[in-house]
Amino acid sequence: MSKQGALVALRGQIDELNSKLLELLNQRIEVARQIRAEKRLLGQAVYDPERELQMIGELLECNPGPLPPAIVAHLFREITRTTVEQLEGADQRTLRVARKCGEPDRIFKVGPHLLGEGPVLVSGPCSVESEEQIFKTARFLRSRGVRFLRGGSWKARTSPYEFQGLGRRGLTLLAAAAHESGMASVTEVVDTRHVAEVAQAVDMLQVGARNMQNFELLKELGGCGKPVLLKRGMSATLDELLNAAEYIASHGNQEIALCERGIRTYERQTRNTFDTSAVALLRQMTTLPVLADVSHAAGRKDILAPLARAALAAGAQGVMLEVHPQPEIARSDAQQQLDFPAFDAFLEALEAPLATLDAHVKPPAAMALVGR
Amino acid sequence: MSKQGALVALRGQIDELNSKLLELLNQRIEVARQIRAEKRLLGQAVYDPERELQMIGELLECNPGPLPPAIVAHLFREITRTTVEQLEGADQRTLRVARKCGEPDRIFKVGPHLLGEGPVLVSGPCSVESEEQIFKTARFLRSRGVRFLRGGSWKARTSPYEFQGLGRRGLTLLAAAAHESGMASVTEVVDTRHVAEVAQAVDMLQVGARNMQNFELLKELGGCGKPVLLKRGMSATLDELLNAAEYIASHGNQEIALCERGIRTYERQTRNTFDTSAVALLRQMTTLPVLADVSHAAGRKDILAPLARAALAAGAQGVMLEVHPQPEIARSDAQQQLDFPAFDAFLEALEAPLATLDAHVKPPAAMALVGR
Amino acid sequence: MSKQGALVALRGQIDELNSKLLELLNQRIEVARQIRAEKRLLGQAVYDPERELQMIGELLECNPGPLPPAIVAHLFREITRTTVEQLEGADQRTLRVARKCGEPDRIFKVGPHLLGEGPVLVSGPCSVESEEQIFKTARFLRSRGVRFLRGGSWKARTSPYEFQGLGRRGLTLLAAAAHESGMASVTEVVDTRHVAEVAQAVDMLQVGARNMQNFELLKELGGCGKPVLLKRGMSATLDELLNAAEYIASHGNQEIALCERGIRTYERQTRNTFDTSAVALLRQMTTLPVLADVSHAAGRKDILAPLARAALAAGAQGVMLEVHPQPEIARSDAQQQLDFPAFDAFLEALEAPLATLDAHVKPPAAMALVGR
Amino acid sequence: MSKQGALVALRGQIDELNSKLLELLNQRIEVARQIRAEKRLLGQAVYDPERELQMIGELLECNPGPLPPAIVAHLFREITRTTVEQLEGADQRTLRVARKCGEPDRIFKVGPHLLGEGPVLVSGPCSVESEEQIFKTARFLRSRGVRFLRGGSWKARTSPYEFQGLGRRGLTLLAAAAHESGMASVTEVVDTRHVAEVAQAVDMLQVGARNMQNFELLKELGGCGKPVLLKRGMSATLDELLNAAEYIASHGNQEIALCERGIRTYERQTRNTFDTSAVALLRQMTTLPVLADVSHAAGRKDILAPLARAALAAGAQGVMLEVHPQPEIARSDAQQQLDFPAFDAFLEALEAPLATLDAHVKPPAAMALVGR
Repeated sequence: MSKQGALVALRGQIDELNSKLLELLNQRIEVARQIRAEKRLLGQAVYDPERELQMIGELLECNPGPLPPAIVAHLFREITRTTVEQLEGADQRTLRVARKCGEPDRIFKVGPHLLGEGPVLVSGPCSVESEEQIFKTARFLRSRGVRFLRGGSWKARTSPYEFQGLGRRGLTLLAAAAHESGMASVTEVVDTRHVAEVAQAVDMLQVGARNMQNFELLKELGGCGKPVLLKRGMSATLDELLNAAEYIASHGNQEIALCERGIRTYERQTRNTFDTSAVALLRQMTTLPVLADVSHAAGRKDILAPLARAALAAGAQGVMLEVHPQPEIARSDAQQQLDFPAFDAFLEALEAPLATLDAHVKPPAAMALVGR
Repeated sequence: MSKQGALVALRGQIDELNSKLLELLNQRIEVARQIRAEKRLLGQAVYDPERELQMIGELLECNPGPLPPAIVAHLFREITRTTVEQLEGADQRTLRVARKCGEPDRIFKVGPHLLGEGPVLVSGPCSVESEEQIFKTARFLRSRGVRFLRGGSWKARTSPYEFQGLGRRGLTLLAAAAHESGMASVTEVVDTRHVAEVAQAVDMLQVGARNMQNFELLKELGGCGKPVLLKRGMSATLDELLNAAEYIASHGNQEIALCERGIRTYERQTRNTFDTSAVALLRQMTTLPVLADVSHAAGRKDILAPLARAALAAGAQGVMLEVHPQPEIARSDAQQQLDFPAFDAFLEALEAPLATLDAHVKPPAAMALVGR
Repeated sequence: MSKQGALVALRGQIDELNSKLLELLNQRIEVARQIRAEKRLLGQAVYDPERELQMIGELLECNPGPLPPAIVAHLFREITRTTVEQLEGADQRTLRVARKCGEPDRIFKVGPHLLGEGPVLVSGPCSVESEEQIFKTARFLRSRGVRFLRGGSWKARTSPYEFQGLGRRGLTLLAAAAHESGMASVTEVVDTRHVAEVAQAVDMLQVGARNMQNFELLKELGGCGKPVLLKRGMSATLDELLNAAEYIASHGNQEIALCERGIRTYERQTRNTFDTSAVALLRQMTTLPVLADVSHAAGRKDILAPLARAALAAGAQGVMLEVHPQPEIARSDAQQQLDFPAFDAFLEALEAPLATLDAHVKPPAAMALVGR
Repeated sequence: MSKQGALVALRGQIDELNSKLLELLNQRIEVARQIRAEKRLLGQAVYDPERELQMIGELLECNPGPLPPAIVAHLFREITRTTVEQLEGADQRTLRVARKCGEPDRIFKVGPHLLGEGPVLVSGPCSVESEEQIFKTARFLRSRGVRFLRGGSWKARTSPYEFQGLGRRGLTLLAAAAHESGMASVTEVVDTRHVAEVAQAVDMLQVGARNMQNFELLKELGGCGKPVLLKRGMSATLDELLNAAEYIASHGNQEIALCERGIRTYERQTRNTFDTSAVALLRQMTTLPVLADVSHAAGRKDILAPLARAALAAGAQGVMLEVHPQPEIARSDAQQQLDFPAFDAFLEALEAPLATLDAHVKPPAAMALVGR
């Protein structure tokens, strides 16, 4: 038998063992269900740690190997745990935010506009700083066709001595500026106690990278009644990001957009390393809209257009970009905000068609090429 | 003039040029310091790579030579870099939590015990799971001389379907168990809305790694009236950790302990990479007590003792360690919690004296060695 | 004066100080040049460490501050060091591989084809495994218009017990297959002792990620007479990559292409994190062609097309992609090599036009949009 | 049947199902082991995420329930994961350099001294720069009892314009200085073509971090006849490090010492992040001596003593430390080399006893403590 043949045959054996395991596991939960019914009649709790311990002890004693005790114990703990959760009604375990086979992209309204359809731009200053600043920005962006206006009111800043945002007043200004221009407003929320107020004022609530695993905030956003924009933590895995979204979804809110904004690595040329693969993978793993915040990823202005083009090429349904009428006097992130002419140049750069490979020619046409 | 005389004269010119250069460099850092002050008011970062690039570009354009462009660029980059480092260092030294020259370690009471003096052990289960579990653990630990009891009541878990802690009931059990054994109680707080309640119940409030930059929580803890244990975020820099502590300090609470608990890297043998240098550096940079959570760093049981020894050798004033009466049935972090016999073995391993280098012999004694 | 005004004024002072510093530095090297001439007459070496030490000691003694001694010492060491290097003829210090202002992209011949013009595809199996395998692959790829054939002969494998490549025989097969199809051949070289032989056989020599800082190999490639494809080390900075290229360039070979292939991070969904910003930045920093190896970045097949599209969108002048007639039996990297139908699907996916933002509309047209 | 009787019967069914599951799981890992063997012949990785995905997909399709898809998927992922870990663990245990059960530490002669017994210090300048420098250093170190003298002759420098070492002359000087003081000499080798010459001159050949996966060099060192000091690559996993050592071992040389020297992370306070867990884990995973290069890890002088203490506390059998008569004028790594008085202070700091926990009191004694 060829090497490959041997592999295929062995995999067949694995498949068969898997089927038998699955059958037994299904029988097992059925019995566990009956036990639970009996226990209920006896007024006993489903979960009995002592019984679990004893059961695993017995299995370990009669285990012939080669599976080592630690793995046997771990696997049966998992079997027991999932059984208990299942019986306790935790059937929500398949993540709500995961893409089921064939499921289409989720599209939802954010204020007056749709998110999740064609790619959009979410733009505005890092912080709302003044009435003039935010209205000027909103009008400019709207004149360019942008429909989503972002601006921070409570800023999450590394140092307590840095500008912390205008707070409530920023919120009001942002909402008014967006409203005037017919844009959807997006702002960050940083405290469970602010959720209701922020949800009343703006169209979409953002969770910043530093709060991606602020689970109480996520739960609160499950009931806020407005869409949520969830940014990836600065060293969060995609699995952690999806589970963070699941906190919101399992608490009642399915209108969530995810945002890749660069991850922390050793490279210092950029503030964060924009993870293009994350965009491509999230598009497969979930039906939620996926955005790319190129400003925070780069932390500099000169590569925003190529990064945005790359994000769109990888499937992003939106790009976040910081724009400020006078970045040099911005009170936060001055180094990465574009001014208006730079924004126009950015749009122009985005329009350039994607370079085509010399290679991507299909068979008959290609024949000609070979002769070159 | 003799040849040697010519050389001496030329060297005199070099010395004079050196003096002038030094004068200008001193003036330059003074101006940079003022720029730094302005930038801070504007919320801008000290280091601006694009401004540097432009500045160097201008110098190169007007450089008459003979210094070649590469050397000009290199020297001015060095001048800029050292300036930034100097100014950032100065910033750091002005933080309330930063160690001022000659300042002694901060020591404070946590419940009935002191923190910051000799090294202590902060131990207990990952989660409070039942009355029996936490009382049994407290009594055991106290019998070994441990004075700080930890246990989670609201757990920050990756998935919403994992055990989330007993909440308020966990808090009550923990406090009662600690009280019975005369221990100080430590528990994590995850929501600004819980701060008052948790502060009333336990002796020390912990901020978990995921909430290190939950700034609203930090501010709230500034007024909670109890000491705070602040864990380093999973990819936080030391600068960010100190600034997070500064949020608490600048809001009124100076009783803060810092905790290194491993950082996220590519290495998969451990859940996180324990950063021993962070312990050594934090001991220099701040007067706050520095702890080391070896359980969360390792994510496995077999290297807890060497890690704890290393942490103490590097200057840690405390070690955090998860202990559970039956780790196999723990509802969280089962793989890294020690059972009671393993805890005793851990204590024994800690006691072993530090291996000594063949080398550490001082001069006269060393003379004998040379002859070996 | 406004805040911004103050900043501008202070920056003016910095510019003035910079000019004076530059003037003094130019005078200083002029004097140093004279000293060197004197020393030469006296038969003394240019570099005199004792004199340097004494000079710095004197500066430290008379330093009024605020510059701290460490920075003074460092800066004058740099001034001295660069002076010595300059006088010793090391004027090559401006990196040869760095893009000078206005300099066009470098384009060069690799075998019969050009690199650096329009984007190209460099494709083939991870390892040359048999005559049939490599000829089949070459013919297939050429039928699709691909002009660069890659295949490993000496493989750098993590374990000594993994397939190490066919060595010399692989080299011959690769060259023959490429020649038959009129393609340029590319293969990795892993030992200084192989350079001459490999350079004689193939059109382009690849330096793998693990050897990016194998400086002796780089130097040897400086004299090999064939273009070099230099892959970024798995945790190399861009600065380190450019300096590695400079080793080749400064040893006589300017025909170098750089290749981003993903960097090592904590994220496990992909084997490496493809660093799109690196592509964009390298295109600015150097005139050398920049390629993107999406196969090694992803380590999986399902996101190769979006990653390749992203790389091209960010400016890459080529994409490297592993293709194998039967990936399931490949002797290395089986998980990431495409079979032929998958390769055709990949090409098709590349052809799709870049999604366009709802926003990228220029002013007059945009006016209409506002009214929507 | 009584209620309790029903419960007992149902539990009997669970026990029976458990036994069958265990039997199947044991069969399954046996088949997986065979697959592993086949894959190794084909050069494929054990873990194949896409195959896993497909396998789970098939199970879900044919799952009759009542187990919900999420639990089925989770349990089979756990089964797969533990299988992979078990098989990879088994692999590791078969490496020649892996510690077999009960195997004692390897101890071997390096020149006149033993390595692998009590902890030693390997010290000397970064680069050999002059006869005076290296002899002075050797005599000083020997007067302090140090037995291993290190010094670079061919330096691996980031830039081709940095000092590249004295080459052959450095080798001769190092060997002579070590010989005069009765020390063992250690120097880095950077090219396969240098191996024989370096092996003849010095007592131990070092492989630098950048060459850890220069496999041709490792193979060559397998036959060099002298012990090898292998440094961990700057982002190498422990598995990769052990496999690199295995290249040397499998080519005939078992006298290998491993050296942790810090890994590249995002943290900027240190040049690299010293990975203390690596020291502890390597001591378990292999019998080879494990050293800690604290100078390269820290990249600064002020935490060398705490890091060295931590390394020893974690089990390191040696510490590498850079020492230079005049670090200010060193031609490489000036910022991290200690001068002689600083070296004496370092030795003094190492001697301080390890701080002891308030906690580490054994039962009866502890009783007294409880009463405090």
